[in-house]
Amino acid sequence: MPDLYLLKKILALTLLLQSQVKVLSRIVLSKSMVAIVGASLTKFGKRSEDIFTLTKESSSPLVRKFREEIDFVLVSNSYSGEFNSISGLNNLVTTYLSLDYVPSLRVDNTSGSGGTSLLVAKSLLDSRVARVVLVIGVEKMSTKGTREVTSVISSLLPPRERSLGISVPSLASIMTKIYMKKYGATRESIAQVAVKNHRNGARNPYAHVRKEVSLEEVLSSPLIAEPLRQYEFCPISDGSASLLLVRDEEAESFTDRPVYLRGIGTASDSSHVSSREDILEMRAVREAGRQAMRQARVDKVDFAELHDMATILEIVEAEALGLLERGKGWAQTWEGITEVDGEMPINTSGGLNSKGHPIGASGVAQAVEAFLQIRGEAGERQVKGARFGLAMSMAGFGNSATVSVFGDEP
Amino acid sequence: MPDLYLLKKILALTLLLQSQVKVLSRIVLSKSMVAIVGASLTKFGKRSEDIFTLTKESSSPLVRKFREEIDFVLVSNSYSGEFNSISGLNNLVTTYLSLDYVPSLRVDNTSGSGGTSLLVAKSLLDSRVARVVLVIGVEKMSTKGTREVTSVISSLLPPRERSLGISVPSLASIMTKIYMKKYGATRESIAQVAVKNHRNGARNPYAHVRKEVSLEEVLSSPLIAEPLRQYEFCPISDGSASLLLVRDEEAESFTDRPVYLRGIGTASDSSHVSSREDILEMRAVREAGRQAMRQARVDKVDFAELHDMATILEIVEAEALGLLERGKGWAQTWEGITEVDGEMPINTSGGLNSKGHPIGASGVAQAVEAFLQIRGEAGERQVKGARFGLAMSMAGFGNSATVSVFGDEP
Repeated sequence: MPDLYLLKKILALTLLLQSQVKVLSRIVLSKSMVAIVGASLTKFGKRSEDIFTLTKESSSPLVRKFREEIDFVLVSNSYSGEFNSISGLNNLVTTYLSLDYVPSLRVDNTSGSGGTSLLVAKSLLDSRVARVVLVIGVEKMSTKGTREVTSVISSLLPPRERSLGISVPSLASIMTKIYMKKYGATRESIAQVAVKNHRNGARNPYAHVRKEVSLEEVLSSPLIAEPLRQYEFCPISDGSASLLLVRDEEAESFTDRPVYLRGIGTASDSSHVSSREDILEMRAVREAGRQAMRQARVDKVDFAELHDMATILEIVEAEALGLLERGKGWAQTWEGITEVDGEMPINTSGGLNSKGHPIGASGVAQAVEAFLQIRGEAGERQVKGARFGLAMSMAGFGNSATVSVFGDEP
Repeated sequence: MPDLYLLKKILALTLLLQSQVKVLSRIVLSKSMVAIVGASLTKFGKRSEDIFTLTKESSSPLVRKFREEIDFVLVSNSYSGEFNSISGLNNLVTTYLSLDYVPSLRVDNTSGSGGTSLLVAKSLLDSRVARVVLVIGVEKMSTKGTREVTSVISSLLPPRERSLGISVPSLASIMTKIYMKKYGATRESIAQVAVKNHRNGARNPYAHVRKEVSLEEVLSSPLIAEPLRQYEFCPISDGSASLLLVRDEEAESFTDRPVYLRGIGTASDSSHVSSREDILEMRAVREAGRQAMRQARVDKVDFAELHDMATILEIVEAEALGLLERGKGWAQTWEGITEVDGEMPINTSGGLNSKGHPIGASGVAQAVEAFLQIRGEAGERQVKGARFGLAMSMAGFGNSATVSVFGDEP
């Protein structure tokens, strides 16, 4: 029966090929996802410790447990030269943590460094350069006074805008005025972002400003950039946050509750804020969000961490990401939708506004909050049934943005 | 004939599966290689232009030709804050190059930033975050005097060593004395590195110091760190170098002569040089080299670009990489093995020693030299029949190293 013989051979070959396709599919598909298997952070605030001690404080719970496994360290930091007179921070940090033989690099994208570090970590894992990546975000800013810090941070503005005396707070001021005029937003609704975020921050043991503030207190605090007031801006903070990332297929050997990075997108916009067609249209945020949501295969998230360096930004970003309705974000904020128990909780951690904004650490800390929320470990500020969350980490004033979508399953 | 019908179906299925396996294999295998499809650089030296103009000068031949294709920009730079009072350099550069909508980040690993950028570029391509990556290395250092530049660069040393007054040149001095004593190396053989590299640099239109120097001139130049003299150290330079990278399967649609990054390895060592068991054993260099050569599947390269910040380093690094014999690198240098027409040409570009060392640009420029050599476009300094080349980009004083192996075929 030669025909049957042939048939058998072909069947065997088919099965072999099928199994090969399965193996290959697994490799190809698994390439696209990584998981956070550990996360920790320091208390943010004016800290007396130096930058090395802060990195150790945030990373040591992970390093202690997984020292032998870590094979790449990313240090998310922008200003160690300016604020700490230190260069080559990544190599000094690995030596300080007794991880001498672990390769490292410093990722810088100003205030968006943390989100960008997640993107680099994912790439290193995908490309098999690394198996276990430790991301440490850190900034020690309180070495300088407010005036000097503002001046250093303004060095991210294009020379033309800088020479006109424009600063990041002044851009927030312009944005607020245009938003209020265009959409008829009330002044109170914008200040409400600070009320909510301070309420959340008061429930976050790691936050810089752990006190609730009333609407009246926000609106009577010192004027910074008309009409925005002191409580509406992030404080100047020191702090560090750490994450351990692996490929999804290995995640469960590190923890029984991994949090998966289901999607990550990044996009850019003109650094000349003045030349953008519409200052309210945060193109980089919108595009990065679209990419991340598509990749994550989810329609809706249960909470979001946004870049609320100034109150107005939380509203405008949430609109750009489709979390709030375009032009109605102010009203929805006023109605309480973005509260921890609202329909779309935003900045449950307290956000940059109350948790603080140590530049290189901020985006990493957003992912830490997502990790805690999805594992149900966010304590008093826990979002009920949180399964999917989003973090948006932004450089400059929307010059670039990275959006990450996290979930409890791959 | 139901059997024949079944047979036909199975055959069709087999063919389909086979083609799928092919496609998948291609994806899986191609993951491991990327290619340089374009390279250019500025003349290195004391330049009157600002940092933005330098990035434009090096990248514009690539941007002009492939503007629409570029979907990620990596800026390799360490000291824009310290030397140029600029932060967020990557976002300002994309705006300056009218690549506003292209995402970017700054990669920093001090003097090893260029090699590290290649690693990040490869990872972004492997993970499909990007399809076409533009790497721009740049540093504008001449804004400060020699004393200040030395002080800024010493900020990469561990606080303990810094407080003892140790600087990078003083480490080179210690290394030279130990090497000479241990291996009986002559003073002349070490100075010969500078003679050779200046000879090569004189033939490189992009080099900072384009003049030949005699052994006598080297040995009578001002003493910098006993016994090393001025001509034995790299000058302080401004400059920029750019590369365009894609995955290998796309390379030929960009150029008819791509240069393939066949292997890349990275490794780290203690930042406390004083606590290393043997200062002559450059562990990070050796390990990174082993990884890169294994990945590249080659036994031998035809030329190498090394980190000759000081003459002694070229010899010790070449020994660590197995390019020269352990303890005999000095004698082999003296015999002329490392000359352009020798058995193992090293630093045909002139190296850091004569080409110059604009920190963030250096490692990128090494890859540019490899690109030119492998394409046979290195003019007067062309290595005959060069097919495989190696570049070693190093942070600090061997704190970390990245080794890249390039070839004319995948």
